Amino acid sequence: MRSVSAERIGMNAEEFQNNLEKYAQLVIHCACNIQPGQELVISANLETIELVRLLTEAAYQAGARRVTVRLGDERLTRLSLDYAALAVYEEFPDWLALLHNGLGRQGAAFLHIESADPQALAGADPQKLIASQRAGKVACAEYYDALYKGGAPWCIIGAASPAWAEFIWPELDPAMALERLWQAIFHAARVDQADPAAAWQQQRQNFQQRISWLNTHRFQALHYQNSRGTDLTIGLNPEGLWQGGGDVLKNSRYFFPNLPTEEIFTAPDWRRADGLVQATMPLVYNGSVIDGFWLRLEQGRVVDFQAAEGQDVLAAILATDDGARSLGECALVPWSNPIRQTGILFYSTLFDENAACHLALGSGYPDCLAGGLEMTDEQLQAAGVNKSATHVDFMLGSADLSIQGIDAQGNITDIFENGEWSKSVGADRQDQKEDAAND
Amino acid sequence: MRSVSAERIGMNAEEFQNNLEKYAQLVIHCACNIQPGQELVISANLETIELVRLLTEAAYQAGARRVTVRLGDERLTRLSLDYAALAVYEEFPDWLALLHNGLGRQGAAFLHIESADPQALAGADPQKLIASQRAGKVACAEYYDALYKGGAPWCIIGAASPAWAEFIWPELDPAMALERLWQAIFHAARVDQADPAAAWQQQRQNFQQRISWLNTHRFQALHYQNSRGTDLTIGLNPEGLWQGGGDVLKNSRYFFPNLPTEEIFTAPDWRRADGLVQATMPLVYNGSVIDGFWLRLEQGRVVDFQAAEGQDVLAAILATDDGARSLGECALVPWSNPIRQTGILFYSTLFDENAACHLALGSGYPDCLAGGLEMTDEQLQAAGVNKSATHVDFMLGSADLSIQGIDAQGNITDIFENGEWSKSVGADRQDQKEDAAND
Repeated sequence: MRSVSAERIGMNAEEFQNNLEKYAQLVIHCACNIQPGQELVISANLETIELVRLLTEAAYQAGARRVTVRLGDERLTRLSLDYAALAVYEEFPDWLALLHNGLGRQGAAFLHIESADPQALAGADPQKLIASQRAGKVACAEYYDALYKGGAPWCIIGAASPAWAEFIWPELDPAMALERLWQAIFHAARVDQADPAAAWQQQRQNFQQRISWLNTHRFQALHYQNSRGTDLTIGLNPEGLWQGGGDVLKNSRYFFPNLPTEEIFTAPDWRRADGLVQATMPLVYNGSVIDGFWLRLEQGRVVDFQAAEGQDVLAAILATDDGARSLGECALVPWSNPIRQTGILFYSTLFDENAACHLALGSGYPDCLAGGLEMTDEQLQAAGVNKSATHVDFMLGSADLSIQGIDAQGNITDIFENGEWSKSVGADRQDQKEDAAND
Repeated sequence: MRSVSAERIGMNAEEFQNNLEKYAQLVIHCACNIQPGQELVISANLETIELVRLLTEAAYQAGARRVTVRLGDERLTRLSLDYAALAVYEEFPDWLALLHNGLGRQGAAFLHIESADPQALAGADPQKLIASQRAGKVACAEYYDALYKGGAPWCIIGAASPAWAEFIWPELDPAMALERLWQAIFHAARVDQADPAAAWQQQRQNFQQRISWLNTHRFQALHYQNSRGTDLTIGLNPEGLWQGGGDVLKNSRYFFPNLPTEEIFTAPDWRRADGLVQATMPLVYNGSVIDGFWLRLEQGRVVDFQAAEGQDVLAAILATDDGARSLGECALVPWSNPIRQTGILFYSTLFDENAACHLALGSGYPDCLAGGLEMTDEQLQAAGVNKSATHVDFMLGSADLSIQGIDAQGNITDIFENGEWSKSVGADRQDQKEDAAND
């Protein structure tokens, strides 16, 4: 996999347009997997309109019945946060709930384009955004059910915006920064490869080997350790499943909930986590940066925490509800992955979480438990899958991270060594494949 | 009133920003008359985002509870028109109906920013837009009731967009065309005056004199005539009322449904119109231009018509429903009005209808009948106010237009002579005022 470097920045207008079109095709066909007669809902900031138009046309050409586009603007979001009362955020708009629930029920695809200025909402009252998220979780219950239980495909992708590019590279000429960010996004999405869809199908297959290995070993706990101070043991659910690459709907259609995706993840037992975890990258939460932070967990709950920057935002996240203080996700990403190799800190969870091993505070995904798609939230919670109105990923990956799996008999197996997949992971299957190839 | 001329085009960035801020204040306080705790809904194309942000901030500063912004894009609209089936347009989105009905019921203000490229939708199937309008009229019945019967204020204003400016002045440098269009919009909205709100209050008072004169004379019919071929007699309702300048809500708050507004109008008897009317300006309907057209009416209905351009669009308008073939509005605008004086053909109904006398096919406004606000659509129709899912204004004003009023006794009074208000109109009241001033 090539990395983005300075000499590749001379992308001309024609090449850019060509890549943008390839990206749109990839997202509609491979990531969202739009079917004839299906509806599509796109939410995006207005700076991404060029991509939105290409996606809309590609969706209609794929036979979409209707494409509903919700265009937003970060400065309008900010004005509302600055002026509207908390009570306004506690009451989710009924029409917006109807849009999500109604179209979710019908199996519409939901595509979100991430292009946010990482500091657009810096200093805004985090309570308002959290109240809105909490109210939305209740008001849009049918929508979330459709999304997380295989009823409707969804996808989050990235698009460059001037403010975001300038935040990453304040020293660059704005046009060059924008182009560099687009290059990185195209690269992470394999758009710069000859056949991006084929590259993602290959990625799926690679993931599947490791997922099978992890699911076969039925680890009961993971032990994380590195020189940054992380020393954390997290319990896994006996019926837990590892997932990654993409997801499968009830109707058996495949889709990619995130593009790019480099993670293999599961929902740990929210009641069992002990030790300290040191974040290794800043976290951007709803337009505010949280950096230099650690969390101490006891019996699955965060009992102490400290952030060099964004302490109030971190506190607000943890105060969202009971579930926000426990873990909902453990994700494994090798340190040498292609997003990490770009050397770019994106200040965007979509990219940064795929650049490093991470955990998430808040809700766990139902498909990370055998039979989870058929369970109620309460059943999931009783079985160990965390329940919360929020889900916030944070990165703990490093070049020296080790992760060990502990099975029911107390046997210890290396999963990660020095930030990379241990050679033993999936090796048995890999060996079989190589043997077959040598025949 | 100054006219926009070439030497005024050198507006600098600071002056432009200043005017844009004055415009936003005028629209929020004077036109929408936003009150503390009120909600505001803004619909606009994304090219107008700078104005939308200023309006949003001004509304919050005026105490608005929440500002809901719906950003659109003409190219997305066009893609839908080109690809989505007619059946999609016949079914109005339930969530969009809930947004309008729910907020309309609460007395929210609805502000629409007109910035359309006059040819954005040229060649698109007019049936789809008409089907959408018809479905929306049914689905959003509560919303229209709130708007037209004094429950919720609404306002349509203009904002320049590059495509619109280029359509008007294809020969100009695009930046200069855009600036010229902004200048004209600021001028028409009195933003270039020291106190625009005071100018509009003055305009209201001037209108009130003429409206009182017209209402006092209780004309039973109007006779239009000019050298272009127009020779049309239109019946007026015995209980008809003339309106103009602004409107008053049930709660007595004043607002301006259009800014600018130069018209004094009434809803004629839809069953009584005979003769021929020749349009004197092109009409832009949902992004298609209709030009060089005439209509022949008999017993209130269009029985023949011809357009040099856009014949199919005109035919589609007339086929919307029964009411679309009859008149819903007669509006009086002197030829010498400030919008006309700019010498610009805007290809936008908001401006062009305020530059000349016009009529409208389709629905009439309930407040143009005594007691009309308390009537059902059926009662209004029985009393002579037209009912239709559409309302399309077209211009018949000219420098030589004469309009005569005919009262119940058959007396004829000049209302317009050579395109201007006859000296007798409102003169009695004007005289009284001058007498009072001389005391």
